[in-house]
Amino acid sequence: MSNLKIQITPSENKKEKLSADQLVFGRTFTDHMFIADYTEGIGWHDHRIVPYQPITLDPSATILHYGQTVFEGMKAYLSKDGIIRLFRPEENMKRMNHSCDRLSMPKINEEDALEALKQLIEIDKEWIPKEPGTSLYIRPFMIATEPHLGVSASLTYSFIIIMSPVGSYYKEGIHPVKILVESEYVRAVAGGTGTAKTAGNYASSLKAQEVADREGYSQVLWLDGIERKYIEEVGSMNVFFKISGEVVTPALNGSILDGITRKSIIQLLKHWGVPVNERKVSMEEIREAYLNGKLDEAFGTGTAAVISPIGELRWKGELFYVNNGETGEVSKKLYDALTGIQKGNIEDPFGWVVEVNV
Amino acid sequence: MSNLKIQITPSENKKEKLSADQLVFGRTFTDHMFIADYTEGIGWHDHRIVPYQPITLDPSATILHYGQTVFEGMKAYLSKDGIIRLFRPEENMKRMNHSCDRLSMPKINEEDALEALKQLIEIDKEWIPKEPGTSLYIRPFMIATEPHLGVSASLTYSFIIIMSPVGSYYKEGIHPVKILVESEYVRAVAGGTGTAKTAGNYASSLKAQEVADREGYSQVLWLDGIERKYIEEVGSMNVFFKISGEVVTPALNGSILDGITRKSIIQLLKHWGVPVNERKVSMEEIREAYLNGKLDEAFGTGTAAVISPIGELRWKGELFYVNNGETGEVSKKLYDALTGIQKGNIEDPFGWVVEVNV
Ligand SMILES: Cc1ncc(COP(=O)(O)O)c(C=O)c1O
Ligand SMILES: Cc1ncc(COP(=O)(O)O)c(C=O)c1O
Repeated sequence: MSNLKIQITPSENKKEKLSADQLVFGRTFTDHMFIADYTEGIGWHDHRIVPYQPITLDPSATILHYGQTVFEGMKAYLSKDGIIRLFRPEENMKRMNHSCDRLSMPKINEEDALEALKQLIEIDKEWIPKEPGTSLYIRPFMIATEPHLGVSASLTYSFIIIMSPVGSYYKEGIHPVKILVESEYVRAVAGGTGTAKTAGNYASSLKAQEVADREGYSQVLWLDGIERKYIEEVGSMNVFFKISGEVVTPALNGSILDGITRKSIIQLLKHWGVPVNERKVSMEEIREAYLNGKLDEAFGTGTAAVISPIGELRWKGELFYVNNGETGEVSKKLYDALTGIQKGNIEDPFGWVVEVNV
Repeated sequence: MSNLKIQITPSENKKEKLSADQLVFGRTFTDHMFIADYTEGIGWHDHRIVPYQPITLDPSATILHYGQTVFEGMKAYLSKDGIIRLFRPEENMKRMNHSCDRLSMPKINEEDALEALKQLIEIDKEWIPKEPGTSLYIRPFMIATEPHLGVSASLTYSFIIIMSPVGSYYKEGIHPVKILVESEYVRAVAGGTGTAKTAGNYASSLKAQEVADREGYSQVLWLDGIERKYIEEVGSMNVFFKISGEVVTPALNGSILDGITRKSIIQLLKHWGVPVNERKVSMEEIREAYLNGKLDEAFGTGTAAVISPIGELRWKGELFYVNNGETGEVSKKLYDALTGIQKGNIEDPFGWVVEVNV
């Protein structure tokens, strides 16, 4: 149990809430935010919940020049019975600390962070949309704030949590996306920052995403930076394929993110007795499976979409239409199971869900 | 010629200046800063010089989460005759635009940026230290400011210039540093952001630098991320070796920074008739040259130190003492030539220097 003391300053001007169908991902924020500051030699201090407000930084702050920052992404779900649920939030806090380590940043106290999050959600709970498929997106992040241009770890940091109500990812029910296999740009290699959720990985991806957008693809699929043969992950999702009845996904190889949805899916599939294998997966293997009619399904997994079936893959000009561009059976079953557990509509056999307001 | 209009708000409280020997790199800033804002569809606007002051960002600003930012580093030198000189500043502005392109950021008008910089220097010229070896460090940078958590290029940006007086890099004259060859972490690979001056490259380096600091090395030397054999560059310097009378430096291979000091040195060496070769250089080659007594010199090159002779290299536990830990002849000659041109003490045959106040 955390016995964190949080100073609370309630907002005096409550913002107007948008209806679920007006919500655009990450553009509307709730009335409050959580902040704690870190000073080398003192540790974390001044834990507080304050009205959502701008951050003030010296122009020389480390974050602005050397990108010393990490973040997390998670969701709170409100069910019909009024219970607010988080999905494996300890995993996010744990991964945040893994990211902090790679970026030479101080660790957070994971229990305190979860306690702070619960209090923040409690205060802003009216912001959680109720409609099917909606949720409250939560963004914990840490930034290096020292006013110093030297390339070295900052001596001061802020840990902040902001929250944004999000509409349904699938307005007309789950449906497949088109993914572009990236051959020019590289996201990460082993020894780099690929396993951390840190700004630089995403900065590096913007250029590739621009091309994907222009050509009508929703995200890019990254290949390994060394041989440019093996599949890594999608822009903000891990990726799975069902080939000849077996589900495969790239192994955690030191350059991809250890996704919490990925991890949960592997556990679910094993629980169901579906064969699932974490290993190297090459684009050539996907191509052959496709040409031989053995590529049954492909899907991305991540907090935003939960499961995102892939209906089309483009690789060096070749097009692979997966499962006739329709949502596959395993994709659908996983989607229903995960969202059911998250919303509290079906039983949670793994103890994944944490209830906030009980 | 730029015909930029800059709105100037002079500072009312001038800060106290430190003496040259109290200055620590990047900790003291001048009284003013330059800012311009960019809005998609409008372009750059509100060019202004204002008192040095904090920046205010929405907690969801793109820079804080996805590291969409680029920067430059350059110096202004004050000579005995009162002339303020910049060293190849157009090259910095050009490289900034190269970085912007990689990061999906809007380009700056290079002439306008130089004009803004000159006006800013003019206003804060009393901040340029006069002592030998000192200078005014200049940090132009651009940050993505849109309040939006989606992973896509921001629609708004700020371009900012801040300046910091710096003491002499070499308090007791030029002297060699110890460099640790990094075998675990990787800075960049081709297809990544290595050729751009962007935050993520430096964020990725902090962990390796931490180890170097702990073991008494001043910076790390990066190897290629693919075979971990070939030399890339040092933390914030390009690197040169003199082997059997020939000067070699890693070629621009798509993952290292195209250093302006590097470029100038190659030109100087050619001008002097010294053989210089841009090519792949492996650590194994350096090791063999060392063991055969053919590694004459090694040095890093960059805006901060200009030339930084390398007296010791450690690679996988082996130590290579270069030139008995002393500054080599070519290193010294290059240092004297470059700093002489920068300070206006010797003739500038290449038209590298731009005088600010004439
Ligand atoms: C690069 C990347 N890979 C994978 C994921 C999926 O991870 P998770 O399932 O924990 O959301 C994300 C998004 O969070 C991501 O940004
Ligand atoms: C990674 C890196 N390489 C090389 C350099 C040297 O470049 P320049 O000579 O333009 O200062 C720098 C510093 O600016 C740098 O940060």
